[in-house]
Parts: sequence; structure tokens; C-alpha cells
Amino acid sequence: MNTKSTQVLFKKEPEGLPRLDDFELADAEFGEPEENQFLVKNEYLSLDPYMRMLMGGGWQFRGYAMTPGQVMIGRCLGVVIKSLNKDFKEGDHVVGSFGWQTHAISDGNDVDFKVTPRDDISLTAYLGVCGTNGLTAWCGLEMIGPPAADETVLVSAAAGSVGSAAGQIAKSKGCHVIGIAGGEDKCRIVTSEFGFDTCCDYKAGSFREQLESAAGDGIDFYFDNVGGEMLDTILPLLNRNGKVAVCGVLSQYNAKGEPYGVKNTRLLFDMQLRLQGFLVSQYRERWEEARAVLEDLVASGRLRYRETIAQGIENAPGAFIGMLKGQNVGKQLVRIDGE
Amino acid sequence: MNTKSTQVLFKKEPEGLPRLDDFELADAEFGEPEENQFLVKNEYLSLDPYMRMLMGGGWQFRGYAMTPGQVMIGRCLGVVIKSLNKDFKEGDHVVGSFGWQTHAISDGNDVDFKVTPRDDISLTAYLGVCGTNGLTAWCGLEMIGPPAADETVLVSAAAGSVGSAAGQIAKSKGCHVIGIAGGEDKCRIVTSEFGFDTCCDYKAGSFREQLESAAGDGIDFYFDNVGGEMLDTILPLLNRNGKVAVCGVLSQYNAKGEPYGVKNTRLLFDMQLRLQGFLVSQYRERWEEARAVLEDLVASGRLRYRETIAQGIENAPGAFIGMLKGQNVGKQLVRIDGE
Repeated sequence: MNTKSTQVLFKKEPEGLPRLDDFELADAEFGEPEENQFLVKNEYLSLDPYMRMLMGGGWQFRGYAMTPGQVMIGRCLGVVIKSLNKDFKEGDHVVGSFGWQTHAISDGNDVDFKVTPRDDISLTAYLGVCGTNGLTAWCGLEMIGPPAADETVLVSAAAGSVGSAAGQIAKSKGCHVIGIAGGEDKCRIVTSEFGFDTCCDYKAGSFREQLESAAGDGIDFYFDNVGGEMLDTILPLLNRNGKVAVCGVLSQYNAKGEPYGVKNTRLLFDMQLRLQGFLVSQYRERWEEARAVLEDLVASGRLRYRETIAQGIENAPGAFIGMLKGQNVGKQLVRIDGE
Repeated sequence: MNTKSTQVLFKKEPEGLPRLDDFELADAEFGEPEENQFLVKNEYLSLDPYMRMLMGGGWQFRGYAMTPGQVMIGRCLGVVIKSLNKDFKEGDHVVGSFGWQTHAISDGNDVDFKVTPRDDISLTAYLGVCGTNGLTAWCGLEMIGPPAADETVLVSAAAGSVGSAAGQIAKSKGCHVIGIAGGEDKCRIVTSEFGFDTCCDYKAGSFREQLESAAGDGIDFYFDNVGGEMLDTILPLLNRNGKVAVCGVLSQYNAKGEPYGVKNTRLLFDMQLRLQGFLVSQYRERWEEARAVLEDLVASGRLRYRETIAQGIENAPGAFIGMLKGQNVGKQLVRIDGE
């Protein structure tokens, strides 16, 4: 018996911010799983900024761009509903790159990990703080730092899923933690809910002054989700031997024309700075260790998170665009079936 | 009995390229060394681009700028001629920060190391390939790399003292080594004398094409002495996980106005690059190991070097300006006494 899957396809490269007509809804049918395959019913889809790069259009994530007509790439939490694969049995919860669709056939290669549900952690956390976002935060801090207990850590996009986790992990290590977010509401959440010591509002006119005042003794570690002009503003605030973990370039996913030129690169030499880009997938051998830390922090309430959950796979494109505009707080998810 | 020392003083901050009247010749007198001190007669002075930064004027090496009237900072090879310090006796050869002058009084704190003269290595090498320049090359490669035997290493300012050493050390490790230098003559020396696999001439119009052709399989490690626009040109040629050791910013020591904005910083994230500035002084605990390697390479003829030696302390400012214009090949020294 065939299974119908509702899919969101990548239709065309956006110019700047994606629009709804850069996506297309479609129906597909999957047959029975063959040997070594299983059928997964997706429950939640994770929306993440990197997807904008996969859509190409000027900026591309080299070697990873999607081609028009393919199912949008994305990570889901799903349940195995039929299986001819000995490692995955009916009822297993799995997180994997199953795409923007209601069902998927997998041979296991696109699975990140199986989830062992526990009472004290929500399943959706495995798409966020206990999943790739949390692992990304942990890997950036640990593999490029780690910052020492008395050091000052600055985190941009601090209200987002990765940024809020990075700041809280740094706090749990005893660091002084400063966030950057856009708008008073987000800044308030960053300090009151995520426990950052302070948060600077980049939408306020006094942004540079806020930063200088917050980072009185300079910054030892910058967890950079933004890149571009903000990085340039922050470089002069870094202490000698300061480190920048370049986790993303939010400022440039939708940029058109010539990219922003970073003028303060000379400080790399003057102050013996280290700037390093990374992907969580580079550090797969540390994931198990990291996830144990993250689960412990979440279960004990020291790592908090927010979720913005859109309802229904058909609303994924709109939710994605909203997220790129910064309308979400915390992790942007889509509940595949809606309510 | 007092000892007369002829000195070159820092007179004023240059605008752009220093001029002769930014310096001043002066005479000083030193009394007998006191307890724990010794008197050193300088034989050779090392001239290095970092001195331009110490002169200030827009660009400064933060926290290290000189003040008008002080003796120009610089490293010398000298001989102890009177000593009340038990660690330094008459006749000892020492390398230390004794300044641009014929004699100096030291308590040993400004000494980098004592030289044990050997037949198969020239004394002047201890101001170059067996001294700070060679150590800088070794530390940049080893501490930020090290590049693996089959990787491609690119070195800018490849005809200079640090650059030529970096390339030859990389060659000795089995790397494929590409140089960058200005003009046909320098490029020829880089390949024929220093043994680089190829050298790109940044003064030729086809520079970018030369680089792309030389780095067919991309660049794994860039030993950057230049910064600025050249770094921007090279970033897109770096392979995934590529590394840049930022050893200097020659392009900007004399720059006026707004510094060049590096547009390709986004590739840090896309390609998981690492850019790291460093000073040789950070790695003092590795110097002994490094010097043994360097001495071995020099004595066995695998690490070659050139020197440009100006005659007489009074000609140091002119030689320094010439070096900043790129008129020297290899290490720029001043023989203090002249011929």
C-alpha cells in the first residue's frame, strides 16, 4: 500500500529574502520500504538559517546548493512506522535529514541519532537544545575555546536557538556572558529567561556604546552567528588572544551585491586573535559527550529554551521567511500535522 | 671610564612611509656596569617591518608604541665587553633588544638568547633564520598548522627573511610550496635559491590568474605576511579547513585613511577556515626545540637565506626605509661599525 507524502519543494533561487513563491507544495507517494529501508512519519520539522544558503542566489553554501524541484532539505523528528532495517524498529523516534515533508523513506544514512524519550525532556528538544542547535553551541565553545571560567563571552543572535544555548552553556562554566539581540523584548528574554548577565540591543542607536559598556574588560570569546559589520564592530573589543567561533553569517544570507568588507582584520595580527569557522558535523566524535552534557543541563533547568511552533507542513515556507526576518523567539519548528 | 654610544632616536610619527627626518642621531654615554649589569658592544642590528608599527602614526601596535626621543627599538647581535652579571661574561655573544645604538647596558632581561658560535653557521644567522625570523616562521607553521606533507602551502613576502624560511621549512616537511613576491628578480630567487615549487609575482598584472594556476588543487595553509587586499584575493583559493597564519600586515604598516575591508570573511564559515594572528613571543617554550631544527636545516644547506647588510649605524634609517619599500632581498641588517 502506498503512502502519500505532502512535500515542500524548492522552486527557485530567491533574490534576497525568500518569498512564498520560491517554494511549491506537492504530493508524492512512497511504496513499501525495501530491504534495509524504513518509512518514517515526520512529527516536527526544524527550520534553520542555513537553509537560506542552500537556496543559492548570489550566496551559496559551496557544494551544497539545492536544485529547483527537489524537496527542501531539513531535519525532522519522526517515528518509524514500517521497517525492513534491523537498526530501526516500529515506534522508534529518530532525528534525521528527512526533508520538508510528512513522510520519508530512509536507509538510515540520513539519520542523525535515535531518541530515547525521557520524562524530563520534551521530544522537540531533540531538534533544538538537545539536537543540532545545542551540539553546535557546545562544539563552537569547546572546540574553538573553551573559554575559561572568569572570561567574558559575547554571543550574537542570543535569543535564537544556538545563541541562547551557547550563552547558557558558557554561564554553566562560570563565564561572564553578554548577549546581542534585536529589540527590547528579545533582550529581556535573553537576560531574564536565559540568564545572560546582560544583553545589547543592536536595533537601538547606541549599540556600539552598549557593547563597550557591557564589555568593560574586553571580550575573550565571541560566538558569532552574524558576521559582517557586526563582527567588524566587535573585533576592536576583543582582548589579546581573543577567539571568534564563526557559527553563521546571518547578516549575509540575504545580502545582495558586494559583501561587507571587514576593516579590522588587521587586529588579528595586532592582538593575536583567532577567527575560526566551523560546522557541527566536523565534530561528530564529540556528539555523544556533548549530548550528555546538554541533557543534564536541560533536565536540571539550567539550559532553558523557547520554541515557536508553526502548525502544518503547508505553513513551513511562511514560518521560514518569518524566522529570517527575526519574528521567532528561540527554536522555530513546524508541527507537521498541524493542530 | 664612560663609554660613548652612538644612537638613533625616534623623533616623530611618520605619515605613511617614514622619512629620514623622522629619526635623529645622538650620542650618549654609559658609565661602568653596576651590579648585575653588563656592557654590550653591538655588532649587527636587525631591521624588521614591525618597527614601523612601533613608530605609530595612525596605525599602532597597541600598547607598544614608542615615544619621541627614545632610542629606536631593535634587536642586535653583540659581544659582552664588561660584566658584573654572573650569567654573562666578557666575550659572550648575545642576541637581545639592545636598540639602534653602538653600545648598551643590560641586566639580562632584554636578552633573547646567548649564541654558541659554530663553524658551520654564520653569526649573523642568529639575527635571521636561526633567530627571531626563523623562529617566527617555524612557530607560524607548527603552532597554527602544521601543514601535512602532501598539502599546499602559500607564503607571501616569500623573498623576505621570515617568508623564505617558512617556505623552506614547509618544503623540508614535504609540502608543495608556492611563494608570492614582487618582481621577476625576487620570484626567481624564491624558486631557484629558496627552492619553492613556484612563485607568483604580485606586481604582474596577471596576479590572480598566476595564483589560480599555481594553486590548482587549492591552498591548505597560507602563511600571511601581508594582509589586506591580498588576503581577500587568497581566501577563495583556500580549501575546506584551510588555515591562515597571520604573521604580519605589511600592506598596512604605511597605510593612511580607512583600512582595506576584507569582503570574503564569509568564507570563514562556508569553508570552515581558521585565521589566526600570532607573535613569536607567545611560543617561547618551543624556541629551543625550534632553534635546533633551524640550525640543523641551515648547517645542512636545506635552509638558505640572503642578507642585505647596510654599513654603519648612521645608515640604519635609510636602510629601514629601503626595506619598507621592498629594496632588500632577504634579511636586512646593519653592520654597526660599518666597513
